[in-house]
Amino acid sequence: MPSRAVLFDVNETLSDMAPLAHRFSEVGAGPHLLQTWFAALLRDGFALAAVGELRTFADLGREGLRAVLHGVVPAADVESAVEHVMSGFAGLGLHPDVADGVRALADAGVRLATLSNGGAAVGERLLRDAGLRDRFERVLSVEDAGVWKPAAGAYRYAVAELGVAPSDLLMVAVHPWDLHGAAAAGLSTAWVNRDGRTWPETFRRPDHEVAAVGELVGIAAGPAAGRAGRP
Amino acid sequence: MPSRAVLFDVNETLSDMAPLAHRFSEVGAGPHLLQTWFAALLRDGFALAAVGELRTFADLGREGLRAVLHGVVPAADVESAVEHVMSGFAGLGLHPDVADGVRALADAGVRLATLSNGGAAVGERLLRDAGLRDRFERVLSVEDAGVWKPAAGAYRYAVAELGVAPSDLLMVAVHPWDLHGAAAAGLSTAWVNRDGRTWPETFRRPDHEVAAVGELVGIAAGPAAGRAGRP
Repeated sequence: MPSRAVLFDVNETLSDMAPLAHRFSEVGAGPHLLQTWFAALLRDGFALAAVGELRTFADLGREGLRAVLHGVVPAADVESAVEHVMSGFAGLGLHPDVADGVRALADAGVRLATLSNGGAAVGERLLRDAGLRDRFERVLSVEDAGVWKPAAGAYRYAVAELGVAPSDLLMVAVHPWDLHGAAAAGLSTAWVNRDGRTWPETFRRPDHEVAAVGELVGIAAGPAAGRAGRP
Repeated sequence: MPSRAVLFDVNETLSDMAPLAHRFSEVGAGPHLLQTWFAALLRDGFALAAVGELRTFADLGREGLRAVLHGVVPAADVESAVEHVMSGFAGLGLHPDVADGVRALADAGVRLATLSNGGAAVGERLLRDAGLRDRFERVLSVEDAGVWKPAAGAYRYAVAELGVAPSDLLMVAVHPWDLHGAAAAGLSTAWVNRDGRTWPETFRRPDHEVAAVGELVGIAAGPAAGRAGRP
């Protein structure tokens, strides 16, 4: 088995979270609250990581929804609204480029795994429903690492579980903070930039940039998975 | 001089950031983007804190605005829009309860200081314009601590600068993550809850809860500034 491997982030990198915006509309809140809520959820998870503590994505998600829906939804309806939004995770699908890209990577003999700040069950369900679960060697969660990404311990956990050298593990994500943390922990990095965004200069530049998962084949299956393709 | 002191957060705790929403409208973006942007700014600052690094609030603010305005404002207008929003910080005022509350605390002989994730100049300007600068012994920024709140190093820096025992320093903030970090670092904590929110159970409960800064007089100037009043 080759020693090199690709480690995918899950939420927004593999899954398309846009349908959750409809769930906000359905409970009488603005669909734009999806973005606010998700940023605040990560903010609170990272705050705890900076203190050396961890709460689950699901717990932070529910508390974050209570905060963002305060004064927007009648108080008596908040709890049912919270559950309506959270249950939307179980119905999310993949971005259009993911399934073909994952199959191409697997066909090229690249080891595949995921590492999410969410629970492993969400990733398991997402990949199983897409018929891709057997392409992935492991579906990992930071809940078993004891600390959230982007803290180094989360990436070190994945490195240990997969038995690779850090530089032979290619972290793939849409989120700059995730790739910054992975690079700080010694991993190689590839940014999935589907909509032509500009890299934020406050974070370390990724080794590679792609517009679709399929473009990773030339990077991960090539002779050098490392830092040659820095954009 | 009494050894006990009150340490105020600045953005949203002392200053009212709501007028910045108008700045988003003025550049052709939705006013709701203020909340999304501020959550994402803190998210990125905390991500760096979890990695043990620091960028300034101003740098993260500008990069965060570029991200949040992508696809919302014409690309050619983004930089001027970024500067228009950022310059709004210089015009922010205090929440209505702050000035009288600060004067009452100072009159009671309580030592006052601020500790912001933003630059010290923003806090200096805010307090000077309100005629309150002389009530504050120090206006501190995490930029001199080397790490953002809620990492322990930020609070330890303030403790050292003020020369107090951690438990004799009362951290006052509207943000649960700030009080969680302060408590983890051994400080006493008071939550300013101006609009009847529910404390998020994912964070350690504060020692005190007040609806206005003036209510802190009974806590900070009383015989025991510590953990007696846990709600």
